[in-house]
Amino acid sequence: MSAYEALKASFHRIACLDEASAVLSWDAAAMMPEGGAEARGEQMAVLAGLSHDFLCARDVGENLAKAEAAEEWDKQNLNLMRESHLRATALPRDLVEAQVRAGRTCETIWRAARKANDFAAVRAALAEVVKLTREGAEILGAALGLSPYDALMSQYQRGINAEQAGTIFARYEAFLREALPQAEALQAKRPQAALPPGPYPEAVQADLARKLAAGAGLNFNAARLDISAHPFCGGTPTDIRITTRYDEADFAAALMGVLHETGHALYEQNLPAAWARQPVGAAAGMAMHESQSLIVEMQAVRSDAYLSYLAPLATEAFGKQVTLAGLKHRLRRVERSFIRVEADEMTYPAHVLLRFRLEQALLSGELAVADLPVAWNEGLNALLGITPPDDARGCLQDIHWFDGAIGYFPSYTLGAMAAAQLMEAAREALPEMDSALARGNLAPLTAWLAEHVHGRGSSAGFNEILQAATGETLNPAYFEAHLTARYLT
Amino acid sequence: MSAYEALKASFHRIACLDEASAVLSWDAAAMMPEGGAEARGEQMAVLAGLSHDFLCARDVGENLAKAEAAEEWDKQNLNLMRESHLRATALPRDLVEAQVRAGRTCETIWRAARKANDFAAVRAALAEVVKLTREGAEILGAALGLSPYDALMSQYQRGINAEQAGTIFARYEAFLREALPQAEALQAKRPQAALPPGPYPEAVQADLARKLAAGAGLNFNAARLDISAHPFCGGTPTDIRITTRYDEADFAAALMGVLHETGHALYEQNLPAAWARQPVGAAAGMAMHESQSLIVEMQAVRSDAYLSYLAPLATEAFGKQVTLAGLKHRLRRVERSFIRVEADEMTYPAHVLLRFRLEQALLSGELAVADLPVAWNEGLNALLGITPPDDARGCLQDIHWFDGAIGYFPSYTLGAMAAAQLMEAAREALPEMDSALARGNLAPLTAWLAEHVHGRGSSAGFNEILQAATGETLNPAYFEAHLTARYLT
Repeated sequence: MSAYEALKASFHRIACLDEASAVLSWDAAAMMPEGGAEARGEQMAVLAGLSHDFLCARDVGENLAKAEAAEEWDKQNLNLMRESHLRATALPRDLVEAQVRAGRTCETIWRAARKANDFAAVRAALAEVVKLTREGAEILGAALGLSPYDALMSQYQRGINAEQAGTIFARYEAFLREALPQAEALQAKRPQAALPPGPYPEAVQADLARKLAAGAGLNFNAARLDISAHPFCGGTPTDIRITTRYDEADFAAALMGVLHETGHALYEQNLPAAWARQPVGAAAGMAMHESQSLIVEMQAVRSDAYLSYLAPLATEAFGKQVTLAGLKHRLRRVERSFIRVEADEMTYPAHVLLRFRLEQALLSGELAVADLPVAWNEGLNALLGITPPDDARGCLQDIHWFDGAIGYFPSYTLGAMAAAQLMEAAREALPEMDSALARGNLAPLTAWLAEHVHGRGSSAGFNEILQAATGETLNPAYFEAHLTARYLT
Repeated sequence: MSAYEALKASFHRIACLDEASAVLSWDAAAMMPEGGAEARGEQMAVLAGLSHDFLCARDVGENLAKAEAAEEWDKQNLNLMRESHLRATALPRDLVEAQVRAGRTCETIWRAARKANDFAAVRAALAEVVKLTREGAEILGAALGLSPYDALMSQYQRGINAEQAGTIFARYEAFLREALPQAEALQAKRPQAALPPGPYPEAVQADLARKLAAGAGLNFNAARLDISAHPFCGGTPTDIRITTRYDEADFAAALMGVLHETGHALYEQNLPAAWARQPVGAAAGMAMHESQSLIVEMQAVRSDAYLSYLAPLATEAFGKQVTLAGLKHRLRRVERSFIRVEADEMTYPAHVLLRFRLEQALLSGELAVADLPVAWNEGLNALLGITPPDDARGCLQDIHWFDGAIGYFPSYTLGAMAAAQLMEAAREALPEMDSALARGNLAPLTAWLAEHVHGRGSSAGFNEILQAATGETLNPAYFEAHLTARYLT
C-alpha cells in the first residue's frame, strides 16, 4: 500500500467514526430519552477522542511526508489531509484543553448572564476565551501562512478571506442604507394580507413538508424528517436526518425550516460518492453549505412562482384559505430587529457585518471585551438605526463567541450572496426553471447545483467553485439585484 | 495509575464503543432509511474492529499479567477481563476470518435453501461452518479448561455447563411425556372463548403497551418503545430501546412482546450503576436475561391475577369485550408444533432439547451433517410425537447453526426454568405480590429481582445467583410445578 493509500484508509476510518457521531448526535436531539444524556456524552467524547487521535497519529504524519498524488482530485485530497493534520496537531495540547475548559465555563456563565441581562458577569470569562482563541489563532495562522483571523475563518470556509469578505460587506452596507427605507416605505403602502389563524395540525404540516421536500429533490429512501428543539440537517450523505419543530398556530415556520434543511440535505446527498469519506469528497465549507440551504429556502421557495404553487396546496391541505398575498406577507417582509435569528433576508447581513467587525477587533485586541456592549449598540445603530434596549437583546444574544466560536458569522451572509449569484446563473442556463418552480419542482435547479456545486465536493474553495459555476467570484451585485427585485419594485 | 485501574479505563472505553454500536444497531432496525444500510455496515464494522483491537491490545495483556484486586467485585471484574481478553486473543486471526466468511456464506445459502426446502443445497456450507466452529471450540476449550461444547455454551451463559443442563433437560423430557397429553385432554374439554375480531388500532395498542410496561416498572425517562420487524431490547442501561411490531388483527402478540422486552429492559435498568461499563457490571448471561423477560411475560403477566387486570383495561382501550376467558384462551394454550418460535411454554423446551442434543452431536462429529434431517425428524417425533412434513419446517427453520451460533439454544429453556424458580422464591418473600399483580403493578416483584438478580450484575454465574436468590441451583421442579398449576388443574 502506498503512503497515499494508507492515508486514504486512515481518513476513511476517521470519517466512519465521525459518521457514527453524527447519527448519535441526531439521536440525542431527536430520539434519546433524557436519562441517556450523560452516557451519550461519554460515548461521543470517546468517538471524538479516537477521531482526533487517529488524525494526529504518528503514521499519518509520516505518510503525509512521503505521500504523492498525480491526479487533480487526489492532489487536492492530499492537501486537505495535510491541512486537517496540521490543524489538529499545531496547537499544544495544554492550549486546546484550556480553550475547551474556558469555552465551557464561559458558556455556562453566559446562559445565566443573558437571562439576568448582566454583561459584567460574563466579561472576565469572555476575556479569557478571547485571549486563548487569539493565542491559538496566532499559532494556527503561523502554521498555515494566514492572519490569525483568517486562520479561524478558514476553519469554516476555505477559499475566501476576511479582506475579500470585508470589501463585499462594506458595499452591502452602502446598499442597505438606501434600500431599507425604500423597502419599508413600499411595504407600508401595500395592503395587509394575513394568513388565516390556526390551528394547523402538526401531522398535516409534516405531510406537506415531506411532499415539498420530495418535490425539491430530497430522496426519502436515504433521509428522514423528525422533530427537535433546534432544527438541523444531520446524519450522513446516504442517510440524511432533517429535523424541524412545529407551531400549530403558524405553518410557515416549519415549512420554511424543512425546506432550508432540505437545501443542506441535497448538497450532502449529491456529494461525489466516489470520494465519500475522503476530505475532497466533503462539502466545500459552511458558506457554501449555507448558499445551498438559502438557494432553496430564499431563492426558489420564496419566489412568486413557487409561492403560487404552495398557496392552493396549503389551502387544500389545511382546509383554510391560504392566499398568495398572505404567503408573501408572512414570508417576505423586511423589519429592523435586534435579534439576528429573527431577521429577514435584507437586514440579516447587518447583524453579520456587526459581528464580523467586532470579532476581528476583539481578536486583534483593538476592542477590549469591556467595551463590547457600547461598541455593539453603536454598531447596530450605525447599520440599522436602532439601539438594543439591553445587552440581552444586544451582545449577549448569541452563544457564539461565548463558546469560543470566532470566524463563523461571515459564512451566513457569504452564503446568502452566493445563493443569489448561483440562482442567477442557473436561471440563465435553465430557461425552464421558473415554470418548474411554479409546479413545486426544483429538479432542474437541483440538477444544475449537483453538477456545479454539490458534485465538486471540496475539490475547490468557495470563490473557485463560484467562478467555475457563474463566471465570477463572489459578486454582491446579484444579491442586491435579488433584494431590489423582491422588495423595491 | 495501577495496572487494574488502567484495565478499568480500557474496558470503560471499549464499553463506550459497544454502547455506540448498540444505539446504531437499534437505529438501523427502527429508524434508518434503506439508503443508509451500506454506510451503517461500515460504521459498525469500524466500531466493532476498534472494540476488538482494544480488547486484544498488548497493554491489556501486560496489565492483566500484573493487575491485582483486593475486593470481591474487583476480583471478579478482573477474572471477567481475563476471560474476555483470552476469548478475543485465543483464536488465530485466520480461523476467525474463515469462520466469519463461512458463516456469512452459509447464511446466504440457507435463506434460499429454506425457501426451496432443499437441505442438500446447504449441506456442504453447513459442514464447513461446523468444522470451523469445532476447530475454534477445541482451541477455546483448551485455553479455558472446558470441553469444546462448554467453551461455546459459556459464551452465552457462565455458571452452568452442558452436563448440568443435560440432566435437567432429561428430567423435563420425562415430565413432558406425561404432562402434555393430560394438558391437551383438559384443554379439549374447556369451552372455547375467543377474543373479539379486530381491528385493534396500532396507536391504541402502543399506548396500552406503554402503560403496561410502565406498570411493570419500566422508566420511560430512560427508555423508548418503537417499531421494528424483529422485536428486541437494545440500547444501553440508561437509554433502553425496546421495539415491537403491531398486528391490528391481534393485540396480544404486541403486548406480550413489549412485556417480554420490558423484562429484559428492567434487568438492564437495574444493573449496578457503580459498575457500569465494567465486565462485572453487565448482565450475568443470556439464560439469566431470558429468565427476566420470561418472569415478566410468562410468570407475572400470564398469571390469573394480571390477566384479570388486563381484561377490563383492554376492553376499555379497544372498545371491545376482552374477557379473562378470551385472554386465557389466546395466551395459555398448549399445542404440538413444528416451529420453535411459535411454540407454547410447555412444548418450547422440547424444541430446545432437540437442538441441544443435535448440536452437541454435530460438534463432536458423532452426527454427520448429512444425517441431520433424519436425526431432526426422529428427534422431534420422539419428543412431541409429530414429524415435520419437510425440512423447511424441520432442521432448516432457524438461522442459528447456519450463521455459526452453536451453544446458544439451551439458554432459552434454562431461562424459562429459572424464571419459575425465581417467581416461587419471590412469592414466598412477598405475600403482597399477587394482589399487586392484580393491579398491574409489578413493583414488588421488580424490586425483589433488582436486589437478587439485576443488582448482582456479573458478580456471580447462573447457578450461583440462583442459589443465593432461591436457596438452590437450577431445579426444574419449579417449572414443572408452574406448568402443572397452569395447564393440568
